[in-house]
Amino acid sequence: MIDNTTFPDPTYKETVLAPLFEGVKTHYAAHMAAINRAHLVMLVDTGILSAADGHSIASALDAIDDETDIASLTYTGEHEDYFFFVEAELRKRLGDLGGALHTARSRNDMDHTLFKMALRVRGEGMLTQITTLTDALIAKARAESGTLIVAYTHGQPAQPTTFGHYIAAMIEVLNRDAVRLSAAIDNLGHCPMGAAAITTSGFPIDRTQMADLLGFESPLVNSYGCIASVDYVTGLYSAIKLVFLHLGRVVQDLAFWSSFEVGQLYVPNALVQISSIMPQKRNPVPIEHMRHLASVTCGRCDAIVNTMHNTPFTDMNDSEGEVQQAGYAAFESGGRVLDLLTAFLPACSINAANVRRNTDAASITITELADTLVRDEGLTFRQAHEVAAHVARSLDGKPLSDGFNTFKDAFHNATNRAPNMDDTAFRTATSAETFVARRDRIGGPAPAALDAALTDYASHLTALQAQSNARTQRISKAAITRAAAFSQLLET
Amino acid sequence: MIDNTTFPDPTYKETVLAPLFEGVKTHYAAHMAAINRAHLVMLVDTGILSAADGHSIASALDAIDDETDIASLTYTGEHEDYFFFVEAELRKRLGDLGGALHTARSRNDMDHTLFKMALRVRGEGMLTQITTLTDALIAKARAESGTLIVAYTHGQPAQPTTFGHYIAAMIEVLNRDAVRLSAAIDNLGHCPMGAAAITTSGFPIDRTQMADLLGFESPLVNSYGCIASVDYVTGLYSAIKLVFLHLGRVVQDLAFWSSFEVGQLYVPNALVQISSIMPQKRNPVPIEHMRHLASVTCGRCDAIVNTMHNTPFTDMNDSEGEVQQAGYAAFESGGRVLDLLTAFLPACSINAANVRRNTDAASITITELADTLVRDEGLTFRQAHEVAAHVARSLDGKPLSDGFNTFKDAFHNATNRAPNMDDTAFRTATSAETFVARRDRIGGPAPAALDAALTDYASHLTALQAQSNARTQRISKAAITRAAAFSQLLET
Amino acid sequence: MIDNTTFPDPTYKETVLAPLFEGVKTHYAAHMAAINRAHLVMLVDTGILSAADGHSIASALDAIDDETDIASLTYTGEHEDYFFFVEAELRKRLGDLGGALHTARSRNDMDHTLFKMALRVRGEGMLTQITTLTDALIAKARAESGTLIVAYTHGQPAQPTTFGHYIAAMIEVLNRDAVRLSAAIDNLGHCPMGAAAITTSGFPIDRTQMADLLGFESPLVNSYGCIASVDYVTGLYSAIKLVFLHLGRVVQDLAFWSSFEVGQLYVPNALVQISSIMPQKRNPVPIEHMRHLASVTCGRCDAIVNTMHNTPFTDMNDSEGEVQQAGYAAFESGGRVLDLLTAFLPACSINAANVRRNTDAASITITELADTLVRDEGLTFRQAHEVAAHVARSLDGKPLSDGFNTFKDAFHNATNRAPNMDDTAFRTATSAETFVARRDRIGGPAPAALDAALTDYASHLTALQAQSNARTQRISKAAITRAAAFSQLLET
Amino acid sequence: MIDNTTFPDPTYKETVLAPLFEGVKTHYAAHMAAINRAHLVMLVDTGILSAADGHSIASALDAIDDETDIASLTYTGEHEDYFFFVEAELRKRLGDLGGALHTARSRNDMDHTLFKMALRVRGEGMLTQITTLTDALIAKARAESGTLIVAYTHGQPAQPTTFGHYIAAMIEVLNRDAVRLSAAIDNLGHCPMGAAAITTSGFPIDRTQMADLLGFESPLVNSYGCIASVDYVTGLYSAIKLVFLHLGRVVQDLAFWSSFEVGQLYVPNALVQISSIMPQKRNPVPIEHMRHLASVTCGRCDAIVNTMHNTPFTDMNDSEGEVQQAGYAAFESGGRVLDLLTAFLPACSINAANVRRNTDAASITITELADTLVRDEGLTFRQAHEVAAHVARSLDGKPLSDGFNTFKDAFHNATNRAPNMDDTAFRTATSAETFVARRDRIGGPAPAALDAALTDYASHLTALQAQSNARTQRISKAAITRAAAFSQLLET
Repeated sequence: MIDNTTFPDPTYKETVLAPLFEGVKTHYAAHMAAINRAHLVMLVDTGILSAADGHSIASALDAIDDETDIASLTYTGEHEDYFFFVEAELRKRLGDLGGALHTARSRNDMDHTLFKMALRVRGEGMLTQITTLTDALIAKARAESGTLIVAYTHGQPAQPTTFGHYIAAMIEVLNRDAVRLSAAIDNLGHCPMGAAAITTSGFPIDRTQMADLLGFESPLVNSYGCIASVDYVTGLYSAIKLVFLHLGRVVQDLAFWSSFEVGQLYVPNALVQISSIMPQKRNPVPIEHMRHLASVTCGRCDAIVNTMHNTPFTDMNDSEGEVQQAGYAAFESGGRVLDLLTAFLPACSINAANVRRNTDAASITITELADTLVRDEGLTFRQAHEVAAHVARSLDGKPLSDGFNTFKDAFHNATNRAPNMDDTAFRTATSAETFVARRDRIGGPAPAALDAALTDYASHLTALQAQSNARTQRISKAAITRAAAFSQLLET
Repeated sequence: MIDNTTFPDPTYKETVLAPLFEGVKTHYAAHMAAINRAHLVMLVDTGILSAADGHSIASALDAIDDETDIASLTYTGEHEDYFFFVEAELRKRLGDLGGALHTARSRNDMDHTLFKMALRVRGEGMLTQITTLTDALIAKARAESGTLIVAYTHGQPAQPTTFGHYIAAMIEVLNRDAVRLSAAIDNLGHCPMGAAAITTSGFPIDRTQMADLLGFESPLVNSYGCIASVDYVTGLYSAIKLVFLHLGRVVQDLAFWSSFEVGQLYVPNALVQISSIMPQKRNPVPIEHMRHLASVTCGRCDAIVNTMHNTPFTDMNDSEGEVQQAGYAAFESGGRVLDLLTAFLPACSINAANVRRNTDAASITITELADTLVRDEGLTFRQAHEVAAHVARSLDGKPLSDGFNTFKDAFHNATNRAPNMDDTAFRTATSAETFVARRDRIGGPAPAALDAALTDYASHLTALQAQSNARTQRISKAAITRAAAFSQLLET
Repeated sequence: MIDNTTFPDPTYKETVLAPLFEGVKTHYAAHMAAINRAHLVMLVDTGILSAADGHSIASALDAIDDETDIASLTYTGEHEDYFFFVEAELRKRLGDLGGALHTARSRNDMDHTLFKMALRVRGEGMLTQITTLTDALIAKARAESGTLIVAYTHGQPAQPTTFGHYIAAMIEVLNRDAVRLSAAIDNLGHCPMGAAAITTSGFPIDRTQMADLLGFESPLVNSYGCIASVDYVTGLYSAIKLVFLHLGRVVQDLAFWSSFEVGQLYVPNALVQISSIMPQKRNPVPIEHMRHLASVTCGRCDAIVNTMHNTPFTDMNDSEGEVQQAGYAAFESGGRVLDLLTAFLPACSINAANVRRNTDAASITITELADTLVRDEGLTFRQAHEVAAHVARSLDGKPLSDGFNTFKDAFHNATNRAPNMDDTAFRTATSAETFVARRDRIGGPAPAALDAALTDYASHLTALQAQSNARTQRISKAAITRAAAFSQLLET
Repeated sequence: MIDNTTFPDPTYKETVLAPLFEGVKTHYAAHMAAINRAHLVMLVDTGILSAADGHSIASALDAIDDETDIASLTYTGEHEDYFFFVEAELRKRLGDLGGALHTARSRNDMDHTLFKMALRVRGEGMLTQITTLTDALIAKARAESGTLIVAYTHGQPAQPTTFGHYIAAMIEVLNRDAVRLSAAIDNLGHCPMGAAAITTSGFPIDRTQMADLLGFESPLVNSYGCIASVDYVTGLYSAIKLVFLHLGRVVQDLAFWSSFEVGQLYVPNALVQISSIMPQKRNPVPIEHMRHLASVTCGRCDAIVNTMHNTPFTDMNDSEGEVQQAGYAAFESGGRVLDLLTAFLPACSINAANVRRNTDAASITITELADTLVRDEGLTFRQAHEVAAHVARSLDGKPLSDGFNTFKDAFHNATNRAPNMDDTAFRTATSAETFVARRDRIGGPAPAALDAALTDYASHLTALQAQSNARTQRISKAAITRAAAFSQLLET
């Protein structure tokens, strides 16, 4: 079979190679430079390369970095990819020795190391956006710990609670989401370098040093797994998806609460769009934008995870450059949701008048009346509920707290006696404030309970931030160590 | 509640409004200009605006288009969006009259009209890429109608067929995919203009004229649906997903066929990447790139479709600018798959020697031997299969066609007589060529059957292209009509 | 390599073979019997089998059907699957001849034929549920064509329309969904029989007769595609998913409309669940049940479609028994949504008092006032909108229609003259009834426009039902023809 | 508005209420009984109920359990659901006091407690299946630590390694998957009881005692979150999905390795299906069954996760009974994959002859030759690779290890001298055994490295199992404590 064709086919160049090259320029060139430098240091430290060769290669790498304006490169097809471009530059300067930098490594282990370096920055960035949001929510929850709202079940007014209590529920979910994300970022902390193509190398490499120099916690052990496993990707995007799936549910509440008829949430003018022709209209569209940006973020995470479906457990492009980069869009859209929500929610306030109107219209404190009748009047549960139900049905739109007379009659009918409670006690028993104040068990909305919870969340947040900082510092310190070791090679 | 904040909140501006504005500049400004012109023509033709006002507004629109370098605009927050920017420009030139262009319409109907105009171009473009691929496949199938390959079931060699027959199977699926896509494009052909905000307008608008002037087949009837329904989006992306889901399966076959050990498909050098250190290695990585680009395309389609999940059936941002634009990435990656496959598959060839080797090693013509014994030697099915099975088990790696003596013995054992067949007849009965030639029923690989099928596919393709052309011409003609009518307003 | 193991491994038997056998018993045994009978008729008609052999096999098939209680069979591992069980029964009765029924066919073509037969029943069943729903919606839309509701954009009250107009929007989407589903059912109409394992057969089979006898429109042409292509599955489930994705959006509106504060939709007691302790609470939970059943249905459709991702384009289990059956759950949950919505929506009514309250509170007719000022008072657009805006801002909670005095002042301020309109005219101009009545363009809510649309939808529905009936009758007729032909074999 | 309808509407009963009731009978009745008993104990211990009332209710609960055959109940519509059925039974026996058990709780907190109890059993069961698989893999990896295989990149033979090394890579992924799953199970460990409807209760409940009595680690703090947050569901199914997504990749390798042409993996007869008509065919279809069962499992997980998309952050049916039960199908299909793979993979063996054949044909040890020339012959990298490349190209199908003469010539050409290496040394340098033995760095395939890794995996597994056991024991101990406390109530 005679084959006179030469690489690259022009369509292949245009549809794959050139876009890949552009992606490497933007996203990976700096990480590749770091790997080159770390690898060279390790090769010399282990004696695989002589100090003299190490010096020559270091000088050439330095010169290439100085002389190359990466942003202005265009893909020509002369070299298969950016890696080969750099190698050609080395050979141009060093001749045969230029190839020695590639001893005991391969594009396979380099690639997955690059991808982890690129993802850990993004992952940590998103985690920081989340902790910033959490911090803002804790402050808002404290500020709104006494602000009554109507809580809904099945879309209907159910019981009073406070805005602070609701936000605390958000925070708990967000904290668990952040823990999941932080665990996924930890899973980026194991370095593939030294796996070479698949099986490590016959040279006496030091994988631990490589991990250290590149800011990883440790080498990723199994060398086949280093180039074949993708759970560092799927685990990360799965964790991210959940953040936005869960925030999207809060967003639906914000939409409902800020609807004209409910009116529980007041969105300030700065975040409201108007209609060109309907002067009465206030559209809190940032809410919708958060919803669809969250949805699209979920979809982008799924796209990456599902791309791995039914691929082989081997080195393959399905987990590499193009797909990695496609994933970054999730950080972009997700990051916007987090930033916007961090600005949006603290800027909003509760419309107390509307809360009061809805509370009264829906008699949402009625269960506390029944409970009070059991506790304080000694009624059986059935009696208590019958009395309460009777009151509720007879209010004719009046607020429950104005219903003492109705109550008295119903009480008498059920028990053949007058209640001990007077009008004031009745008003107290049926007020939303009392309702909330009495719910002081673990996790309840009463101030002490909520305060304790918020204090715990804040500790949790601090611990999470400490983990995040430790990872970030490990990376910065590695950069310093790497630069110092490389400088020494230059100076030798 | 005193609210001293002013629109827009800086975070909202940065995370939503500015990106939206950039998107409109790139994707929608030209379509908005077309809508403006068509709407003005209609307003004058229906007498809603006077000819004189029409002339003034036309002149202003023309001037704005002349004087505005859209690409260089940046979002300032002064106007809520690009629409209001244009309206402000009109008012700057026309005073109060500037607002008259917005009579009897709204951003709601304009938006979905824009989105359909943007999608129909992309949809038709992708359909053209598909028909181009189909065309190339028909030519390739004709050229390879006599080229034997091994067909697999459950991943194991099963029967001989031809490369042309396999490609014909691809074409059939692709044709059905194209029909689904074409139907989805037809669903973009109904114009929302005239729905205004939700309910049409109190002015005597002509919705049919609007549809005509903008190249739509007809108005989309229900005005609430015009601004609330999203199946033009979900239907389109669902249809696109299937194209790439199905092509991805062919890609998996190409991967398997081009594996070193199977070696059935030869990928030319122009499409093979090499290893820097393993000189024996030929990696047909375009196949992997098609696989992951197809996967990501599926994921991008899903992201858009699933964004609509559990949204309200109303006008909402979840089906608008940002989400629309997020979807365009599916056209980008999907388009690359189609272009690459159109270059790739025709460039590949079948390695006849490897096909022969695998055919022989796996005895894949054995079923035809059994069938022949039934037809020509009068054996019962059980006898025929017993003889065939015995032969297959006794070949010891020899090709089946060299097994006449083994066969003779097995035949004699089973029937107590010699077969009528001689060595030549046996070789014929067990050859892959005979196997294929005998399968001349509808849809079989024999030349006549395949030829008839390919002719049908070609007709089908022509019909599909005719539909596509008709849609495209409708749009071009509308542009001409619109321009002429607008010119007349200018000249009046 | 010595291998003393024997099929089946007990874990394989338990995890795969036994469940598969159970599935065949429930879902496919009857279809397999139909295929056996049709195939036998065809083999005799084409002379592949003699009439005498045909008679013997027919009698044996008949006896097996008589004597086998399929439901009571349990998988023993003696036969690989149900197919081999039937073949063994044939051999038990006919000896060698028992195998002759399998001439010129394979489990491959039989399987995909079975699956299509099982899907077409389910698909047509779901289409019928959809057309039943549509029919109910058309009736409801006619009944509610004069019932005012508030229409929302971005979650806020925007304009008045009628419940009938809203339902008409639903119908349009549902009609397009039904067309997509009907096209997917049409794609089930091509028969794989005759493809045999992959390549058709060397026997002179009649594929068209097979298609006819089994109620298909025609053979599926390419024999490789017959056993490898899965778009009959993916196309169907994609179409189904869209039905429920779109209905889910209506369900979100129903949830919002029936919320206590909005109160636009009244859900009758028969469909409302109560609280054990909150007597005031009415939970219209059928709405939530429709939402999650629709969501799960979408997810089940996705599961089947995505299972095909990155599979080979060959015969494979990934498109067969287990996966096919997993898909049926989508029909089950989706069918419940359709039945429930068909009962639910017509049972609900609009709470006119609440609609009036919300209409007034949100001044949603204000745009019509502005338009009226342009049309009837000769104001420029800017003037008209300024007046309207001024009125809207000055109402202080009063209904707009009571705002004539406010209007008069604003008008005078803007124009220095009194309006021509008097209080009555003002009330008319700002009434929701007028608003709707004036919107009589194609697709608008005014009675004539809506009526015309509903008539069109009804015709569309009739046409769709006719298509469906034609398919169903083709299948029933084929059953009759097949039974007659088989009877003749029995009698011969 | 007069409403004469009565609950339940017959369609609602049939499509929702009856299926829900059936589900509760099967899945939740036992857990509800546990909750009832624990709650009663807590009510008495906190003094909310008197000891005497506690005794009466305990006796009634006991009697109901004795007298009710849950399996035989059918839904009548008399009681809204199973909860109300039990309450009615209590009232039948206790009159008013029957209602007292429901003090300070609600169906909301009970439901999510039930769901967690049902999920933790399933989750722990699946984790056990995973650890059982891991255990089997560790044993297999030890047994196959010296068994050579061909490792592939981009679908092409790349380097030799061992089957043990490959399995070790699987184990590493599986261990991380198990950690993710275990974390998700930990997230089921927080008890919602005490949240009551949303806000806890006005009674002095002891949430910690409730958590203890039901085998939870602690109460879930925020009471709103107890009934609104769903991340215990989404986190669990996300973790499960990844297990099967990752295993599915191994399955694809098994498919490729067991293909006729590659023949690297030998699947024993007990796990191979045959063809009725192709006696040569061995179909290792369990592999395909694992693939599609894994795919469907992923899809089922997605269905549950995505059902939560765009729901409100409140109590809602979308996270309750029906949806919870739909999710259990993922455990069923996923469990089958795990069991089957645990039986399948250890039963398979490597076909050494085929590995050798492919190793030789593809010259996959060539990189080690080049490395040897650098290390032992002092060549530069370029020279070494040129020599190696020359040898590879000149083998003409001969195994590399037979190529000493070819090598000698190439070496001489490049260096003008003879190599130090003789034929024996060359054979050693190019043997797969040497290749593997030299790769003894962390994570490499050489015996010492692999052994160390396997020992680590075993420790990791033990730790994981200890976590799992601790959770299981916490639950069993709670059952004992609960039973004892309840018995004491009975005896009082």
